[in-house]
Amino acid sequence: MKISTVLAAFVVVTLSSLCSQENPLPSWNDGPSKAALVAFVEKVTTPNTETFVQPADRIAVFDNDGTLWAENPLPFQLIFAIEEIQRLAPENPEWKDNATIQAVLDGEVASLKAGGMKALNEVLAVSHAGLTPEEFAKRVADWMTTAKHPRFERPYNECVYLPMLEVLDYLRNHDFKVYIVSGGGADFMRVFAEQVYGIPPQQVIGSYGNAEYQLIDDQPVMIKTPGVAFVDDKEGKPVAIHRFIGKRPIACFGNSDGDKAMLEWTTIGRTPSFGMIIHHTDAEREYAYDKAPKSSGKLIKALEDAAKRNWTVVDMKTDWATVFPKPGEKCECEE
Amino acid sequence: MKISTVLAAFVVVTLSSLCSQENPLPSWNDGPSKAALVAFVEKVTTPNTETFVQPADRIAVFDNDGTLWAENPLPFQLIFAIEEIQRLAPENPEWKDNATIQAVLDGEVASLKAGGMKALNEVLAVSHAGLTPEEFAKRVADWMTTAKHPRFERPYNECVYLPMLEVLDYLRNHDFKVYIVSGGGADFMRVFAEQVYGIPPQQVIGSYGNAEYQLIDDQPVMIKTPGVAFVDDKEGKPVAIHRFIGKRPIACFGNSDGDKAMLEWTTIGRTPSFGMIIHHTDAEREYAYDKAPKSSGKLIKALEDAAKRNWTVVDMKTDWATVFPKPGEKCECEE
Repeated sequence: MKISTVLAAFVVVTLSSLCSQENPLPSWNDGPSKAALVAFVEKVTTPNTETFVQPADRIAVFDNDGTLWAENPLPFQLIFAIEEIQRLAPENPEWKDNATIQAVLDGEVASLKAGGMKALNEVLAVSHAGLTPEEFAKRVADWMTTAKHPRFERPYNECVYLPMLEVLDYLRNHDFKVYIVSGGGADFMRVFAEQVYGIPPQQVIGSYGNAEYQLIDDQPVMIKTPGVAFVDDKEGKPVAIHRFIGKRPIACFGNSDGDKAMLEWTTIGRTPSFGMIIHHTDAEREYAYDKAPKSSGKLIKALEDAAKRNWTVVDMKTDWATVFPKPGEKCECEE
Repeated sequence: MKISTVLAAFVVVTLSSLCSQENPLPSWNDGPSKAALVAFVEKVTTPNTETFVQPADRIAVFDNDGTLWAENPLPFQLIFAIEEIQRLAPENPEWKDNATIQAVLDGEVASLKAGGMKALNEVLAVSHAGLTPEEFAKRVADWMTTAKHPRFERPYNECVYLPMLEVLDYLRNHDFKVYIVSGGGADFMRVFAEQVYGIPPQQVIGSYGNAEYQLIDDQPVMIKTPGVAFVDDKEGKPVAIHRFIGKRPIACFGNSDGDKAMLEWTTIGRTPSFGMIIHHTDAEREYAYDKAPKSSGKLIKALEDAAKRNWTVVDMKTDWATVFPKPGEKCECEE
C-alpha cells in the first residue's frame, strides 16, 4: 500500500507522556470526571470481583468528531470535501451547471447545510466517488499534509484532544479493544486513525458509501461509487456496533445527540458500564457549544438525560488541563 | 449475554491435536496442497526476507459454507430456516395463505429454490426477523443442540472440516488474524463461530439483514427487521472486506464461484499472497460436487481460473487424511 508511505510523512502528535503507569491521564485535572473513569476501569479489571469483565468483552466505542478531534467551524471531512472541490474545479468546468457545487465554490456553506442530505450527497459524489480506496486515501493524506485549521493554524490531525488520546491508551493498557463509531466516513478516518489514534482500520466504523468490485483488464479494482450506503449516526450507531462488532460495548464516549443512542445501548440496564459525554465549554482554548445554532455537534437531549443515565459529563474547561498536543511532535501510539 | 450459557451446553469439536508445533496439520496428507500452504506461511513469517509480512497485515479470509463446514444437501442456515418454519407453523395459522411458506411446510424445497431471492426473503422474514439478536441467537443455539445432519447424523456444528480447523489454528499460531467472509448470515454464524472455530464475532463477516434500534419502555432494543441489507457473496465479498477490514488480505480460502472475487482481490498482482480452493471430490466421506446441478456451491469458473491464478486446489479425497472431527469432543480453540 502506498498509503503508509504517504502517512510516514505526516507530522503527528506526541503521546510520550502516556507511557507513565503511575499517572496515565496527565492531561486530566483531578475531579469527578477523571475519578469516574478511573473507578470504572479499576472495577472491570480487578480480578475475583463481581464487576470483573473478561478482556474479550472490554469493548469501548468512541465517537470521532467532537470527541477525539474538533468538529468546528465545520466537521473536518466536510472541509476536506469543500477544499477538494475548490482544488479540482479548474479541471471540471462542467461543475458550473451544478448549483450545489457552485455554492461550494462560492463559499456559501450555509446554503450547502440548508440543502440537507441531497446537497451533501452531491458534494460527496464529486469529492469522494469515482476513485479507488487507495486513490481516495492518497487525496486525504495529501490534504492532511497541507491543509490547516483556520483558527488553530495546525494540520487537522493535530486538532485532536490530548486527554482523549490518553484515554485511548489508558483503556488499551487495560486490555480494552477500542473502536471508533463515527458519523464520519470510514474510508476518510482510516487514513489517519492508525497513526493518530493507534486504531487499526478494522476498528474504525463509520458511514460508508457504495463501492463496486470489478475485474478490469484482468486486474481487481474497487471503485467508490456515488451514494451513501449507511449513515453511522444516531440510531444507526447501535446498528453499526451490532453489525461490525457483534457485541454490546461496556464503555462509550461521545459529545453530541448523535451519540445518545449508542450511549443508551452501552449503558442502560448494563452493570458495569460507563458513558462519557465531552461537553464543549471552553471558548477560549477550543469552542463552547451545545445548543449554539451555527455549531456542528448539537448536545441537547443527551445532556438532559445524562444525570438519569449516570453518564459522566466532562466539562472541558475545568476537567482538561491541556486540550491539544504540542504541535509537530510524533505519535508513538500503537495497538 | 445468555448466549454464552446456551453455547456452554454445546457439544463441539475437538482440536487437541492442533497444539502440536511439530506437525501443525495432522489431518492433511503430504502433497502439493499442504506443501504450498506451509511454504507460503514460512515465506511471510521469516524475518529479514523480502517476503516477510508484518503481523498487522497477515489477514486471512475464509468462506464458511463448503470451506469450513459442509453445505449439502442444503446450506445449513437454510435447513435452520426451514426447520424453524416447521416448528413455528402451529402458532402461525396465517402462514397457510403464503404460498412460499406453504411450500416449505410441504417439503417442496425445489420450489423454494426456484423462487429465487423473493422466496428466500420471505423465508428469512418469518424465520429470522422480528427478533432481537439475542432471541435469534438463542433459537439458533437451541436448534444446534437438537438438529442433526440427515446423512452424517451429528449436530451441524460438528460437520466442520478438521483439516480446516487445523489451518485456522496454524495461521493464528503464525500471528494471522483470521476472518470469516461468507454468504451466510453474520448473526447466524456468530452463534457458533467463536466456540467452533475460535473466531470472535467482530471477525465474522456475512450477509446481514436490516435492523432497527429503539428505546422501548426506556430500554434499548435492537430488532432484526425484514429485508436483506447486504449479500456477502461474489463481488460483494471484496466490498465487505473493504468495509469491515479496510485492508486487502494476503490469504483466502474458498470453495465455490462465490469466492472467486475475493480470491482475485487477495491474490492478483499481490506477492506474497495465497489462494486455496477446497474441491469437493470425496463422495464417500463427504460429497463430490462442483458442476452438479442439484448441489449447493457451484465451482466452475474459479476452478477454470485456478491454474493461471496460481490458486492451490485441494483434492479433498487425496489431500485430507480426515474430513470431520470425532463427534462429541470438545473444542479448545481460542483466538
